Amino acid sequence: MADQGPRHRVVIVGGGFGGLLAAKGLRKAPCDMTLIDRRNFHLFQPLLYQVATGALSPANIASPLRSILRRQRNTHVLLGEVTGFDLTAKQVLLADGNRVPWDTLVLATGTTHAYFGHDDWAAFAPGLKSVEDATEIRRRVLGAFERAEREPDPKVREKLLTFVVVGGGPTGVEMAGSISELARHTLRHDFRAIDPKAARVVLVEGQPRVLGAFHPKSSERALKALRGKLRVEVHLDSHVTAVNPHGVTFQPDGGKGPPTVLPTETVIWAAGVKASHLGALIAEAVGVTPDRAGRVPVGPDCTVAGRPDVFVVGDLASFTGPDGKPLPGLAPVAMQQGQYVARVIAGRLKGSSDPGPFRYWDKGTMATISRATAVAETHGMRFGGFIAWLAWLFIHILYLARFENRVLVLFQWAFNYVTRGRAARLITGEGAYHPADPRRPVPPGEPVVQG
Amino acid sequence: MADQGPRHRVVIVGGGFGGLLAAKGLRKAPCDMTLIDRRNFHLFQPLLYQVATGALSPANIASPLRSILRRQRNTHVLLGEVTGFDLTAKQVLLADGNRVPWDTLVLATGTTHAYFGHDDWAAFAPGLKSVEDATEIRRRVLGAFERAEREPDPKVREKLLTFVVVGGGPTGVEMAGSISELARHTLRHDFRAIDPKAARVVLVEGQPRVLGAFHPKSSERALKALRGKLRVEVHLDSHVTAVNPHGVTFQPDGGKGPPTVLPTETVIWAAGVKASHLGALIAEAVGVTPDRAGRVPVGPDCTVAGRPDVFVVGDLASFTGPDGKPLPGLAPVAMQQGQYVARVIAGRLKGSSDPGPFRYWDKGTMATISRATAVAETHGMRFGGFIAWLAWLFIHILYLARFENRVLVLFQWAFNYVTRGRAARLITGEGAYHPADPRRPVPPGEPVVQG
Repeated sequence: MADQGPRHRVVIVGGGFGGLLAAKGLRKAPCDMTLIDRRNFHLFQPLLYQVATGALSPANIASPLRSILRRQRNTHVLLGEVTGFDLTAKQVLLADGNRVPWDTLVLATGTTHAYFGHDDWAAFAPGLKSVEDATEIRRRVLGAFERAEREPDPKVREKLLTFVVVGGGPTGVEMAGSISELARHTLRHDFRAIDPKAARVVLVEGQPRVLGAFHPKSSERALKALRGKLRVEVHLDSHVTAVNPHGVTFQPDGGKGPPTVLPTETVIWAAGVKASHLGALIAEAVGVTPDRAGRVPVGPDCTVAGRPDVFVVGDLASFTGPDGKPLPGLAPVAMQQGQYVARVIAGRLKGSSDPGPFRYWDKGTMATISRATAVAETHGMRFGGFIAWLAWLFIHILYLARFENRVLVLFQWAFNYVTRGRAARLITGEGAYHPADPRRPVPPGEPVVQG
Repeated sequence: MADQGPRHRVVIVGGGFGGLLAAKGLRKAPCDMTLIDRRNFHLFQPLLYQVATGALSPANIASPLRSILRRQRNTHVLLGEVTGFDLTAKQVLLADGNRVPWDTLVLATGTTHAYFGHDDWAAFAPGLKSVEDATEIRRRVLGAFERAEREPDPKVREKLLTFVVVGGGPTGVEMAGSISELARHTLRHDFRAIDPKAARVVLVEGQPRVLGAFHPKSSERALKALRGKLRVEVHLDSHVTAVNPHGVTFQPDGGKGPPTVLPTETVIWAAGVKASHLGALIAEAVGVTPDRAGRVPVGPDCTVAGRPDVFVVGDLASFTGPDGKPLPGLAPVAMQQGQYVARVIAGRLKGSSDPGPFRYWDKGTMATISRATAVAETHGMRFGGFIAWLAWLFIHILYLARFENRVLVLFQWAFNYVTRGRAARLITGEGAYHPADPRRPVPPGEPVVQG
């Protein structure tokens, strides 16, 4: 028998892909685990854009962490806000004043939006990271159509029916494609004064191609689909220089062209992310320098320099890949790193041999562009169109099915596919029924201004 | 051929049961219809309590009004806030300054919470009328369990695990039963420091019985189910005298007993409603006196005195029933009145004979108490238990199926029934992850207080 002393304490901060997979990987390990998250649910972020465009409900892509881990008796889920780390006492500090001691710490708090020094743009161009972001974007997009329907001035109507997505990565491409489908199909018969098909969807990307992380052939395919049947206006090599209540200003030709103004009230930010602020805190405490995106450099075993008890995984980590560049911020990387550190920790507890350095197994990447169109790349093969979309659908359902109740997503999707419907297009939230500017919600209690 | 002059303009205010059924009833009438609502969706309010307890998503019980009426080419849906009526010009005034002229007006804006002169209680005891109310209650209820899990002081933990529902009508009974099920079944395995089954669910009702609108036999049945397997603590004939951050104070024996304090942080208000403020506006304009609940008295044809062009239907109307009392504020009354006024208006347009006074066809009433338990009454017959629950389920699915996409609700319910799960138990909204008091959400931008 092993000795009956106090069990090894593993503290995992963050219940995203990396943290959750680490927790699941340790389900049979002889340790006491605490998973700390600010939210009570795990969110399947890759599908957030479907919530933002009314195709799915938040609960379709979110599962309570307690529920996922309910049968895992060695695991304690703690809803809490981490504010710092005491590396000497080996304790996580919480906003409520409590401290959670660790023998091994796994940090997996991911990323947040980055506005590249223009934090004032955030109010006019929400990003897409949380459920609240998604319902806010849904509110703005649907609200813009509603206001256009009531607007007598054609100039203002045009402005209201212009939707600008900044950033041509997977999220930006998916958002632009979905808004176009929403306007051109879902809402087609819904209005009387406006023609939703006349909506202008604009995608502004700083690089010379969309989906920059993909092969140029895939970028080309995606661009063709966007500009073709989706009628998305794509501006490549164009740098955004201003975002304000009047619209978006960008400069083409790599920022050297003349400033062009897109009058709009609905901007979606998909241009960049930075590491969660906990990255900087742990880096400072340990004495390492985060990279430009705020990510924490980790060694081949995902620990930070000199601290074999501190693992950082997923988007928060800067892990040097085989090509000398950091691994991309993708869900599969986070998941595999989570599983990997669970193996390392379990191995240490058993005294078994080291599993060796982490190796990312790239099963391929994919991005969906619209109903029945996607691009995918795997092991040097690239494919697009309906086949890629089916693969995308299959993989996402496979993943979601691992959690409870996700079969509903399948039904919702099947239904959406057949009907081109989007049943979850509710305008909700504080001030959701404010008749004026949707950006300025009515504070509770403030009387609505009378005309 | 009829003459080709301007078409008769029907304006309907409110897209609830009454307004929507009126609009649908006029789909083939030779008129131009405008349906005005503050929200972009029709809400199936009888199931809101399932959203409040995490069993369903908001989108499961809400359908975009535009979507419901998309094929109805004579109908224009307008998202707007009505602020008044000009009876001389026959125009509805909107908050954005616009005016919508009518030849016939149908008012169907329903009810809102009433705190009987204690509006300060609202902050501590939200009611259940809107999607936002439901997600707020869900946030408070789930948040209380989360905070209890972290709470070292057993006294505070007990307070956190006490849930008080004020009002023993159908909504109050459903809420108390659902919270009990949530605690005793859904969350059973989810926590480590607390036992959710130890939660105390209290129902306080001012009358000597629950479900006062039902036959005493049904009230008895419901009371037995609540006090029996659901372990709800029911206080009848008890008047609430205070609601504040510390808890709820009530006096038993019809308000004559000694004040009793229930320490709690989670109170749900299901004790009363009053008419939408538009009732008072139209009543004043026409020169009639609203009843005590703010409802507008209407004649046998649902018009207000002296104004054959102004109909009021549903919860906003005070329609004298065959027993000399106003008809109850039930969905079937609103639906039948909506259908009735559509017949009256269509008849006038065709010049056909008057359909006679409105008659409410009471198909029966039902209330659900918990999984597989309900009470129902129809034509003097009363039944309870599983049969009543099946009837309840059948009727609700039948209704929901009339709108798009409602088959998902069926799946969700079937899933919940088998697993006793509640997949939509997300804590969302501004400040959803504030570690301190869930009643005091973090204003956006305010840094979370550090411990």
